[in-house]
Amino acid sequence: MDKQSIHRLSTRQPDFETRLDTLLDWESVSSAEIQQSVDRIIADVRSRGDAAVIDLTRQFDRLDVQDMSALTLTAERLEQAWQGLPEAQRQALAVAGDRIRAYHERQKPEPWSYQEADGTMLGQKVTPLDRAGVYVPGGKAAYPSSVLMNVIPAHVAGVEDIVMVVPTPDGVLNELVLAAAHVAGVARVFTIGGAQAVAALAYGTETIPKVDKIVGPGNIFVATAKRAVFGQVGIDMIAGPSEILVVSDGGTDPDWLAMDLFSQAEHDEDAQAILISWDAEHLEAVAESIERLLPTLERAEIVRESLSRRGALILVEDEAQALSLINRIAPEHLELSVEEPQRLVEHVRHAGAIFMGRYTAEALGDYCAGPNHVLPTSGTARFSSPLGVYDFQKRSSLIQCSPQGASTLGQTASVLARGESLTAHARSAENRIGSHKD
Amino acid sequence: MDKQSIHRLSTRQPDFETRLDTLLDWESVSSAEIQQSVDRIIADVRSRGDAAVIDLTRQFDRLDVQDMSALTLTAERLEQAWQGLPEAQRQALAVAGDRIRAYHERQKPEPWSYQEADGTMLGQKVTPLDRAGVYVPGGKAAYPSSVLMNVIPAHVAGVEDIVMVVPTPDGVLNELVLAAAHVAGVARVFTIGGAQAVAALAYGTETIPKVDKIVGPGNIFVATAKRAVFGQVGIDMIAGPSEILVVSDGGTDPDWLAMDLFSQAEHDEDAQAILISWDAEHLEAVAESIERLLPTLERAEIVRESLSRRGALILVEDEAQALSLINRIAPEHLELSVEEPQRLVEHVRHAGAIFMGRYTAEALGDYCAGPNHVLPTSGTARFSSPLGVYDFQKRSSLIQCSPQGASTLGQTASVLARGESLTAHARSAENRIGSHKD
Repeated sequence: MDKQSIHRLSTRQPDFETRLDTLLDWESVSSAEIQQSVDRIIADVRSRGDAAVIDLTRQFDRLDVQDMSALTLTAERLEQAWQGLPEAQRQALAVAGDRIRAYHERQKPEPWSYQEADGTMLGQKVTPLDRAGVYVPGGKAAYPSSVLMNVIPAHVAGVEDIVMVVPTPDGVLNELVLAAAHVAGVARVFTIGGAQAVAALAYGTETIPKVDKIVGPGNIFVATAKRAVFGQVGIDMIAGPSEILVVSDGGTDPDWLAMDLFSQAEHDEDAQAILISWDAEHLEAVAESIERLLPTLERAEIVRESLSRRGALILVEDEAQALSLINRIAPEHLELSVEEPQRLVEHVRHAGAIFMGRYTAEALGDYCAGPNHVLPTSGTARFSSPLGVYDFQKRSSLIQCSPQGASTLGQTASVLARGESLTAHARSAENRIGSHKD
Repeated sequence: MDKQSIHRLSTRQPDFETRLDTLLDWESVSSAEIQQSVDRIIADVRSRGDAAVIDLTRQFDRLDVQDMSALTLTAERLEQAWQGLPEAQRQALAVAGDRIRAYHERQKPEPWSYQEADGTMLGQKVTPLDRAGVYVPGGKAAYPSSVLMNVIPAHVAGVEDIVMVVPTPDGVLNELVLAAAHVAGVARVFTIGGAQAVAALAYGTETIPKVDKIVGPGNIFVATAKRAVFGQVGIDMIAGPSEILVVSDGGTDPDWLAMDLFSQAEHDEDAQAILISWDAEHLEAVAESIERLLPTLERAEIVRESLSRRGALILVEDEAQALSLINRIAPEHLELSVEEPQRLVEHVRHAGAIFMGRYTAEALGDYCAGPNHVLPTSGTARFSSPLGVYDFQKRSSLIQCSPQGASTLGQTASVLARGESLTAHARSAENRIGSHKD
C-alpha cells in the first residue's frame, strides 16, 4: 500500500500490469447464504403475495403495517412532496428533468420497412413495454437524480405504466426522491424494497402489478434477486461500484482534477477514481492538490478510503498509451480533460459516457447535462450501453411474402430444412412454391 | 387430456383462462445439482484453463485429445467443408447468407449529436464489440441456419473477431454447420461445448480468447452457465422452447396451416403450436388435416407428443379477441394468415417476428427471408427483441460543455448534488461556474 492517499503507477514499472489488474479487480459475488435467502424470499412472495411482502417489510424495514395501502403512495402524495420543496430545488429538478427528456427524445428509433422487387416486404416494428418497474434504493444511496434517470427514458419510450418501489426503513420518507418521482411522471409508488420488492414486481401480487422489466440499482440482495428473476422479466445491468477515468494533458487546473476524482470517490469506499497523464509534473501537482483539499471534504473519510483502496494516478508515455489504457479499462465515466478531446474520442472504443474538455465535469452529467447517468460499470462498457429509451422498447420483425416471393424463398428454405432433417419445415415452405391460390 | 392429437379450447369455456395458463406455463429451472455442477466446471476452467477444457471434453464428449490444437478448426477446414457440399446446398446457404446480411444492414444505427445555443454538444457514439463468442449446439439440434443467424449480425455490426464453439461428441463433425460458419465469416472454431465452453469464452484460457459477449442456444448446462457468467460478459436471452401462434381468418388452406403447426411442433416435445380462429368450421377442417397429415411426417412421434402436450386450436369470438390473446401470449412467432394482415399488425404489441399473409410461412423466416430466427420465447417478447446488430454494438454518451454551458449547468448540478449531500460533486460542478480559464 502506498503511503500517500492514492496509488501511484507508471507504465514504466516492471510490475505495472499486475498492479493495474489488482487495482481494477472487482467481482460481485453473492454468497450461497445470500442466494438461499433471496430464493426463499422470492418463493414466499410468489406463494403468499401481499401477505409475504407485508411480513418481510415488517422484518427488514421495521414497518408494522396491516395492509398494502399503508405501503402505497399516490400521485397526490408525490405532488405534495414536490410542492413542499424550496424553490431552488424545484427549479433544479425541473431543469434537469427537461434536459434529460430532450436528450432521450433523440434516442427514439424509427420503425422501418422495405419492399423487394417481387413484392415481398421486410421490416422492423418498435413498441414500448407495457409496464416498467423502477427500483430506488432507500437509506444513504437514495438519490432523486437516479429517479429522473431511470424513469424518464421509460416515459419517453412510451411505457404507459411506471411503477416505482423504494424502501423506507423505519418509515422515513425522502421528500426529494418523491418530488423527483412526480417530475419524472411516476404514477404509483410502493414503499417496499429488497428482494421482496423485486419478487413482487417480477411475479405480481394482489396489489402490486407484474411488470415487464425491472431497472434501478440496489444492494447485494436486490442484485441477487434481479439476477434470479432475469428471464421472467427483463432487467438492466447489475451494477458494480461507480468509477471514473480522467485523462489530462496537463493543462487543466490540478485543483479541478482533484475535485473531479473526489466526486467519484465520495460515492462509497469501493468507488474508483483514476487519473492518467503523460505529464509527470502535472501528476505531482494533482497529488499535492489531493493532499491539500482532501481534509476539506464533508465525506473525507469515505474519499480517503476509496482512494487508498482503488484510486490511482498513472503516468503514461504518451497519448497513445493513454488511449490503450482507456480501451483496456472500458471505464463507466471517461473525462477527457485535454485541449482537443474530439481528436481523442475517435479512438475510444469502450466507455459508458465520455466527458469532453476541461469544462465538462462528470458531475454535470450526473445531474443535468441530459445523457443518462446509469452506465455500465467494471469494464462492462465493452458490451453494454447507458440506460436509454432502447431499454424500454423492443423490436418485432415483419415479413410479408408476395406469392412470387414465397415461391422463390420456398425453394431455398426447402433445401436448408431438409439439410437439417426438419421435413415439416420443408413441406410448409414447399406448400407455397408455385401455388398462387387465395 | 383431449382425445385428439391437439387440445381444443374456446374462449366460451368457463375454465378457458385456467386451461390457457396451463398450456402456456413454462419455467426453465436449473436444479441445485445442475447449478453446482456448472459452478464447479466454471471454477475448474478459470483455475486450470486449457487443461480443464481438455479434461472436461474427454469426460463429456468422449474426445481423448492431448492439446487444444486437436480441438481447433481453422478457416481452411471450414472452407473445405463448404467445398465438399452438394451444389444445391452451397447455393441455398449463399442465398440465405446474402438475404440475412441485407436485412441486418438496415439495423445499423447512426451515431448522432446536437449543439445547444451556448455551444454545448451532446451526442451518442456507436461502437462494435471487440470479440463475440457464438455457441452452436452439437448433436440433434446442430443447425447450420443458426450459425448464419448468430454470426451474421455480429459481422454486420463490425465485430472483428468472431469465435465459434461447437461440441462434437465422439468426434462427429457436422459439415453443413462448418460450411455455414465459412459463409458467415467465422475465423476460428473450437470443438468444445457445455458449461466448459461457456466458461472458456467468458474468462479465456491459454488458447481460447476471452470474448465480450456469448450468444447462441444450448442445453440446460449451457443456459445455466450463461446465466452464471452474465455480467462478466454479455449474453443474449436464455431461450425456452420454440413456439408459434397462428391466427387464421378461415381463408387459408387447412393443410397449409396444419403443416405450419407441424413445422413448429417437430422441433422437440416441448415446442408449442397454437392456432386461433373465429371460424369454428375452419378449425374443424384444420383438426381434420392434422389427423390426416400427422402420420405422414418423418418426425411424427415428436409432433404428436408436442401437440398433445402443448398444442391447441382455440376458437375465439372475433378478431378483437384474437388480438387480445396475441398480446397476452406475446408469441415468439406470430403468423397472421389473414386477408388483411396490415390492419391487424397495427394492434400487435408483443411478438418476436410477425409473418404476414397466407404465403408467409414461418419456415421461410427460419431460413432465408432475412430477419433473424433467434427470437424471444415464452412471452419474453414483452420486453425482448430478435437477435440483431444492436446486440453486438454498444453506445457511449458524448458530452462536451462550452464554458458558458458548464457555468449554467453547474448551478443546477450544485443544487441537486447538495440535496443529495454529495458535496464533492457540487464543488466539482461549482469549479466551472463563471470561470472561463484555459
